[in-house]
Amino acid sequence: MNSFEKRLIENAHLINDALDNHLPEIGLRPEKLHEAMRYSTLAGGKRLRPTLVIEAAKLFGLSYEKVLPTACGIEMIYTYSLIHDDLPSMDNDDLRRGKPTCHKVFGEAMAILAGDALLTEAFSCIAKNAYIDGISPKAVLEVIEKTALACGSQGMVAGQAIDILSVNNDIDEETLYYISNQKTGALISLSLWAGARLAEAPTKELEIMLDFGKKIGLLFQLVDDILDVTGDVEILGKPVGSDAKNAKNTFLRYYGYDKTRQMMDEIARDAKILISKIDNVDFFIKMVDFILTRRS
Amino acid sequence: MNSFEKRLIENAHLINDALDNHLPEIGLRPEKLHEAMRYSTLAGGKRLRPTLVIEAAKLFGLSYEKVLPTACGIEMIYTYSLIHDDLPSMDNDDLRRGKPTCHKVFGEAMAILAGDALLTEAFSCIAKNAYIDGISPKAVLEVIEKTALACGSQGMVAGQAIDILSVNNDIDEETLYYISNQKTGALISLSLWAGARLAEAPTKELEIMLDFGKKIGLLFQLVDDILDVTGDVEILGKPVGSDAKNAKNTFLRYYGYDKTRQMMDEIARDAKILISKIDNVDFFIKMVDFILTRRS
Repeated sequence: MNSFEKRLIENAHLINDALDNHLPEIGLRPEKLHEAMRYSTLAGGKRLRPTLVIEAAKLFGLSYEKVLPTACGIEMIYTYSLIHDDLPSMDNDDLRRGKPTCHKVFGEAMAILAGDALLTEAFSCIAKNAYIDGISPKAVLEVIEKTALACGSQGMVAGQAIDILSVNNDIDEETLYYISNQKTGALISLSLWAGARLAEAPTKELEIMLDFGKKIGLLFQLVDDILDVTGDVEILGKPVGSDAKNAKNTFLRYYGYDKTRQMMDEIARDAKILISKIDNVDFFIKMVDFILTRRS
Repeated sequence: MNSFEKRLIENAHLINDALDNHLPEIGLRPEKLHEAMRYSTLAGGKRLRPTLVIEAAKLFGLSYEKVLPTACGIEMIYTYSLIHDDLPSMDNDDLRRGKPTCHKVFGEAMAILAGDALLTEAFSCIAKNAYIDGISPKAVLEVIEKTALACGSQGMVAGQAIDILSVNNDIDEETLYYISNQKTGALISLSLWAGARLAEAPTKELEIMLDFGKKIGLLFQLVDDILDVTGDVEILGKPVGSDAKNAKNTFLRYYGYDKTRQMMDEIARDAKILISKIDNVDFFIKMVDFILTRRS
């Protein structure tokens, strides 16, 4: 294991512990709802988005524990989006993070409510970040506003809506990018921006973080589309062939394998050039390669 | 029309205009999602919760326009909860506010996403309240935290979860109160608290507002249970007999008509005594009678 992978795992441990603390305790009423929330949130996963919050904060001089509540909030939002996306009326998927999906275990009503509660709790987590010494209330309020924008009807939810609405329809190139940018890119970009904003990074650097997030978000989606065809269900932890089953519009279907691979290399290169405008970004350069070569 | 009813209608107009402004514009992508959000939010309704925000703020010296974003946020949360509660996997209701429910018009996926987006947007609205002159960022952050608590897995969502889980099961008296307090009381209490908190009301008065909210929330639920049996579908704007159809545990089923009516009178009296500890609460006294005698 190289030092990048070690750091990823260390971060994931910190985040898992913090999520465990922030989530309502086991046994608390309503038990089944809290069980569902914990089941999906603590099901593992790479914790990529909260890691980006932590590392972006560190890049601008703020230690990880100062932004953990926000990192947890963003992971809760990601988890809620997975729970709702997997529902029968959406993508109808049975497997997620190597386990049966939330609605398969707890039923559809409890899965919808667990998602609702995680989204709600996420904003509480982020708001609580203001209690940490050295964090400005103004920055936290900006993070809340930007999080809602990135995740709402013109962000992540927009991406999922257009994705669902365009099933079985051919879409144009612009719409393909729109879906990926909103559904995947927006939350990744936000994670980088939020960590940097809480660390009071300058405006120019905040914009670089946003743009870098957009690039690695797109890269992440391209790799996702390929893994959905070539991936190993055991490693991936979710079904292979789900996009084809759901007649989803993917980059792979639109451009074919060779062109998609070529785009991945180009975007990875561009992302590295962009982030190199900031000093000491070794972790982020390695993150690009990690996303490019990931198998899960 | 008496002066109380006039003020209710004036407030509803102010809130409807503000909601119209805060919701994403018509025609904005994804059109169908934004149409669903606007359809359910602008479907009318008494705007009781945002009115309580506005009137609580006024009671402590802050004019209505200073708290409109928070009032809108709370109404968006209420609307999202109605959309999700009406879903086929929850209460499976076809009629709401006199119109077909969101999922009947836009499909289940779009209804889930419209609810998700409204909940997300709500927190953005509340956060934006901090931009208003004379509002402290600290108060806004507290409102966000308290909103999440009132609406999350130990608040409104908890009430809905236990309600759903206890369908077809007999529940004890304590659980009956728990469901009502969480599902209905929490958001009504929060509305009163939020308006007063933004107006920098003293701690003692904040607690009175919370307790008063709990009482009128319970009263609201008792009346709801009775209207579900005796109400007129045309005036009510939602189906009559829905509780029985869904085998819901209600106060009416538990205590019978006479005892429920008697409880309503007692709670109304207690609520009036409680709020009278604060001066100039004529509006709130009349609000108790309005809830007690409402037919929709």
